Amino acid sequence: MTKIVAVEVHDVRFPTSLSLDGSDAMNKDGDYSAAYVILRTDDVDGLRGHGFTFTIGRGNDICVLAAQRRAEPLVGRDLAEVTGDLGGIYRELGADSQLRWLGPEKGVEHLAMAAVMNAVWDLAAREAGVPLWQLLVGMSPAELVDVADLRYLSDVLTRDEALELLQEMAPGKASRLAELRATGYPCYTTSAGWLGYSDDKLRRLCSEAVEAGYGHVKLKVGASLEDDVRRLRIAREVLGPDRHLMIDANQVWDVPQAIEWVQALAGFRPLWIEEPTSPDDVLGHAAIRRAVAPIGVATGEHGMNRVLFKQLFQAGAIDFCQLDAARLASVNEVVAVYLMAKKFGVPVCPHAGGVGLCELVQHLSVFDYVAVSGSLEQRVTEYVDHLHEHFTDPCIVRDGHYLLPARPGYSAELKPDSVLEYSFPHGTYWSKGFPA
Amino acid sequence: MTKIVAVEVHDVRFPTSLSLDGSDAMNKDGDYSAAYVILRTDDVDGLRGHGFTFTIGRGNDICVLAAQRRAEPLVGRDLAEVTGDLGGIYRELGADSQLRWLGPEKGVEHLAMAAVMNAVWDLAAREAGVPLWQLLVGMSPAELVDVADLRYLSDVLTRDEALELLQEMAPGKASRLAELRATGYPCYTTSAGWLGYSDDKLRRLCSEAVEAGYGHVKLKVGASLEDDVRRLRIAREVLGPDRHLMIDANQVWDVPQAIEWVQALAGFRPLWIEEPTSPDDVLGHAAIRRAVAPIGVATGEHGMNRVLFKQLFQAGAIDFCQLDAARLASVNEVVAVYLMAKKFGVPVCPHAGGVGLCELVQHLSVFDYVAVSGSLEQRVTEYVDHLHEHFTDPCIVRDGHYLLPARPGYSAELKPDSVLEYSFPHGTYWSKGFPA
Repeated sequence: MTKIVAVEVHDVRFPTSLSLDGSDAMNKDGDYSAAYVILRTDDVDGLRGHGFTFTIGRGNDICVLAAQRRAEPLVGRDLAEVTGDLGGIYRELGADSQLRWLGPEKGVEHLAMAAVMNAVWDLAAREAGVPLWQLLVGMSPAELVDVADLRYLSDVLTRDEALELLQEMAPGKASRLAELRATGYPCYTTSAGWLGYSDDKLRRLCSEAVEAGYGHVKLKVGASLEDDVRRLRIAREVLGPDRHLMIDANQVWDVPQAIEWVQALAGFRPLWIEEPTSPDDVLGHAAIRRAVAPIGVATGEHGMNRVLFKQLFQAGAIDFCQLDAARLASVNEVVAVYLMAKKFGVPVCPHAGGVGLCELVQHLSVFDYVAVSGSLEQRVTEYVDHLHEHFTDPCIVRDGHYLLPARPGYSAELKPDSVLEYSFPHGTYWSKGFPA
Repeated sequence: MTKIVAVEVHDVRFPTSLSLDGSDAMNKDGDYSAAYVILRTDDVDGLRGHGFTFTIGRGNDICVLAAQRRAEPLVGRDLAEVTGDLGGIYRELGADSQLRWLGPEKGVEHLAMAAVMNAVWDLAAREAGVPLWQLLVGMSPAELVDVADLRYLSDVLTRDEALELLQEMAPGKASRLAELRATGYPCYTTSAGWLGYSDDKLRRLCSEAVEAGYGHVKLKVGASLEDDVRRLRIAREVLGPDRHLMIDANQVWDVPQAIEWVQALAGFRPLWIEEPTSPDDVLGHAAIRRAVAPIGVATGEHGMNRVLFKQLFQAGAIDFCQLDAARLASVNEVVAVYLMAKKFGVPVCPHAGGVGLCELVQHLSVFDYVAVSGSLEQRVTEYVDHLHEHFTDPCIVRDGHYLLPARPGYSAELKPDSVLEYSFPHGTYWSKGFPA
């Protein structure tokens, strides 16, 4: 009998603020970071689970502490009991009413829950010897509905409806999977358009994106309208009329300002405006969407939990759902959001980038196409080309498509050397006194 | 020139789980706790500021760490600069984009912001030598609008509208204040109805509430419909037909279940159903409200920020707004919610109880009546009779009314002996090995 014998949580921070990678109108100088969980077992072959949540620097230590507290009940547990009831362990960890008070189901506590449960799912997939997407695709509709967190959702999706949705998609799973094996899953790049980049760098990166086969490029906007007009003109020029251009304001506007600003950029025909205002403002997003159509509204990277997504769907507030694999409470909550998105006919285009988010979402997108939505229409998953070198099983992108991950697990394992180097504040990088 | 020279944050936990005080359908065994902030100055007379957020036990340490991090920029500051621009310091502390990522404006980070800014407001009121309510009542409309956090609210309340609302209330301030000095501010008691109490204890406590002059009594519901029917029958019997009975489900239901359960209790004519479902579910509360009228819907103690309250108002989702003084980011955000409530005509009945929440909200209710709403209709502030003995300036309730606090500050100071005894885990109480 294999047991979980220890939980380690590491505060790993990469000094991305030095190069302004990741700079936008709200977040000018993030140090991309992970509160990184390792679940150790007494398995003789060294079976472990790895998971994380993503932060942008200060406060990563707070998530580390929260993940340590949240993971405590896992220590000493029989592995088969945990991985054999992935809905049960999720509900057990989430049911601590004292910790629940600190949210509920939002903020630091929910990020920590994501980190811990991501490690549990990685462990389950490794134990099964398959990539996470394959574990999910192989589950029956009843098994999937058991792991999905449907609490507070029954006014839009009952358990029976969820079962029915999944059962209807059973035919064609094999052919959709074969299709993805051949082509990969479509993605877009945000690497071109960070706000801190010069016009020349923007032009060069847009050209490189076109050459690399991307049909979609995203730019950050919202700091200066004049700059945005100039930068969008450059991007549209390089992309030509047919490729898609998306814009992302990272929550800097109030609702009336968002409408005005986006209308001023409409001539560049953006596919979507992302995070135009507070991520909590369901009714605000709905108002913006009505005002800026046919430009779409996208949000979700700060979508705090499934109850928020339920309302975004109910209110007709978004055209694109950008769930985040390290902010929602792992696969249990992510599956629930995919099921609701299917019912409401909203395409899910997961948020990625950061540290390791691309590694996670590639699994989710495969699962969505094969088992839930069965559609690639208007679906494109984010890809940002940095920090992949720190992962033992980095994602691979070719011609604007994620190739299917092949190794067991959730692709969430950081290289031990990277953890040693970038642990904050005592790793070899930070202890040299580089600026935080 | 006086400076802020140090920030202390204490993890103070009271063993309330031993007596089931505070037990409800969601929170069965809370240990009422405070992440307690002291801002020390170099003032020769020992001027300090005190503030806290409230939690129910585990995780209080996480809030302590978050408050320490959030308060760091205050150390070394000129006191006059901080208390002379209470809007500016709020925006400065809130603008840390790396910490913002962990919310934004919700969960642990927002609780920590509440704790820190509550201490700043306590310090400002003490420096001015007046109770907090008097500091607020004495501010001009322009000063109040400057401290209020109106970000993300301009689609329902512009700065100019806020100014106008406040200016319209200037006449009559003196007479409203005189009225409160004579009568106090009306409150209701929750002490009678915790879920863990026996029928006999419930009956006795309801009788005592009637004798003590309360016109409103609140009971916890939601664990068992059969029990609820029996307990509400007892309460209604003791209260008679004319006093108000409120019920509180603490988020245990999905939307359809909430509607069904409340309709089954309608015969006992509750004034409101409190927290029928997820506190994040604006549209769910609106649906429940439509279905259970004329029973009112109340929520807010887990209302994470002003953007949520904006939507509760916009959607017509609530009859009573129960903002929380230690979950919203202190007076800056609380004032914004009061202004919106005024515009939408929704009475604010603040959540209290816990540790020291009664001490805080008495100030806010006075401010609301004198300077914002000018009305007592349908307004009644929560009161729970425990843990007041740990405060240096405890609230005083007579005949179902809070008497106006008279001492300088926000009544947020814990007795030093209580901090020593109940600090977790090394205070004299906990180090004896009592159960956590």
